[in-house]
Amino acid sequence: MHVLITGAAGMIGRKLTERLVREDGLNGQAIDKLTLTDIVKPAAPAGYTGKVKAYAADIADTKQSAKMVSERPDVIFHLASIVSGEAELEFDKGYRINLIGMLGLIEAVRRTGEDYHPKFVFTSSVAVFGAPFPHSIPDEFHLTPLTSYGTQKGICELLLADYTRKGFLDGVGIRLPTICVRPGKPNKAASGFFSGIIREPLAGVEAILPVSESVRHTHATPQSAVGFLIHAAGLTKEQLGHRLNLTMPGVNVTVGEQIESLRRVAGDKVASRIRREPDELIMRVVGGWAERVDAKRARELGFKAEDSFDDIIRTHIDEELGGNIAA
Amino acid sequence: MHVLITGAAGMIGRKLTERLVREDGLNGQAIDKLTLTDIVKPAAPAGYTGKVKAYAADIADTKQSAKMVSERPDVIFHLASIVSGEAELEFDKGYRINLIGMLGLIEAVRRTGEDYHPKFVFTSSVAVFGAPFPHSIPDEFHLTPLTSYGTQKGICELLLADYTRKGFLDGVGIRLPTICVRPGKPNKAASGFFSGIIREPLAGVEAILPVSESVRHTHATPQSAVGFLIHAAGLTKEQLGHRLNLTMPGVNVTVGEQIESLRRVAGDKVASRIRREPDELIMRVVGGWAERVDAKRARELGFKAEDSFDDIIRTHIDEELGGNIAA
Repeated sequence: MHVLITGAAGMIGRKLTERLVREDGLNGQAIDKLTLTDIVKPAAPAGYTGKVKAYAADIADTKQSAKMVSERPDVIFHLASIVSGEAELEFDKGYRINLIGMLGLIEAVRRTGEDYHPKFVFTSSVAVFGAPFPHSIPDEFHLTPLTSYGTQKGICELLLADYTRKGFLDGVGIRLPTICVRPGKPNKAASGFFSGIIREPLAGVEAILPVSESVRHTHATPQSAVGFLIHAAGLTKEQLGHRLNLTMPGVNVTVGEQIESLRRVAGDKVASRIRREPDELIMRVVGGWAERVDAKRARELGFKAEDSFDDIIRTHIDEELGGNIAA
Repeated sequence: MHVLITGAAGMIGRKLTERLVREDGLNGQAIDKLTLTDIVKPAAPAGYTGKVKAYAADIADTKQSAKMVSERPDVIFHLASIVSGEAELEFDKGYRINLIGMLGLIEAVRRTGEDYHPKFVFTSSVAVFGAPFPHSIPDEFHLTPLTSYGTQKGICELLLADYTRKGFLDGVGIRLPTICVRPGKPNKAASGFFSGIIREPLAGVEAILPVSESVRHTHATPQSAVGFLIHAAGLTKEQLGHRLNLTMPGVNVTVGEQIESLRRVAGDKVASRIRREPDELIMRVVGGWAERVDAKRARELGFKAEDSFDDIIRTHIDEELGGNIAA
């Protein structure tokens, strides 16, 4: 089996690659070839014995996307994307990468040949939804994004479904919740604090909380996100039907419950490293985001997130901190 | 006021142009200039005293769309579209006109200048919805089109909302129900019989009914469709908010009720000119279409369709047949 990952140098792309190599396959099928692309050259995975092509490529350049699929990967994980904040600030860049990039890639697939229909896993986002919301967002809720990023993801979902319906590829779109705890340095994303208030205190560093503790949100770990991608690749057309863009499950908690969880798992001293510093802009942005999602269909199809926020924190401590908490 | 109509040579485009000329304005504002474009040159309207530019242009050619907006029309009615059946058969052509054409036009608006934000009325369709449906489709129902045409319309709706949110234009999208009674010759559209079973018998010609009388659908006259366009152009950004793609109201009836209505309005002899000839393919296609729509928000915003199917038939007799029924 040949697997292509776009956006392979990103956090999720690297974790997906590592897991495929570690498990020596995808849903039980051996992988003899990996193609890894990103705007910077992705690292070749350690310990992999199959063929690897890893190279830098601009996803919005149709020659490059044609090259990516020219060797007919059986499964494509399309992760390449400009993130929400950047797509909002740089309108042209966001549309170029997130929309034109997707269109170029699926057109490249279509033009590769009538006998070529790869599995195509697309990472969408709950940013396709925009306030006002019902108590919990049902699977049948309409897409009214309030960002260009969410708009681009919503458009790609529609394209994915139509290209699948026409038989050009075998698509599945997964709407990721907020990924928490995101490893690495703090960034300036409006959502950054959801991870920051866990990651920084665990590392002995003070974190800033810019919103009220009553803010509610849905989270899944990077490990769950990778699990969603792998599970999605194993679903059949028959299981998916025409409605192949699925809201993923997650752990639904308030910020106050996140902090309580941190206290339970890591103690009072760690939990005290959070400083309240309300930020009107962040509060307003976060106020337009989805709080609860039903994710009924995804659960029925076997997608699994963590059971509790305690589990989310423990996963971070085990996987990213080698089990060590800064006292 | 300067008004641009794309798709001006089509049935709705011509009726819209005629009405604007007849009323000598748009929602009470005088129109001193009309730009009319289509893939064939639209006819200049009779009796109009303002400036008219009517010319043939390919909407998907970005030089042409830039030309269309170069004189900064205050209101744009974007009607140009490849119809459902054709978009399904000619995949590239459908995407080229319905998606790339729209993208080119709104990009042309954006690039015309930061001080230019025209009212932009986009004609969408209930084809953005795909079965299975609840009893009646609510305004918050998700878009799961089962045709490339519906997909393209759904994508344009998302683009329209994002370009409006960013302040590049002042958009409103109206999802038209099936237009009935469509004047002119019978065509091969799967939906053609909805009009055919009224139009042909009234003209003394036999019509074929390919589906069961229990098939339910929502209809509005061409006159109502033009009314929707004009009403949409008069709505403010404040009235619309972020959710600016609206499902239009219509008269909801079964085919049996359509025929009963024809009998009431035109008599038994006319109603007897319908021959039942079941067509499996048409039955299957029509089975995926929306039956009932709530259109709650559109009604609240003042959009009005006919009150009954009798009214729909009477409008056809008055407007298209000069009051005459073939005995």
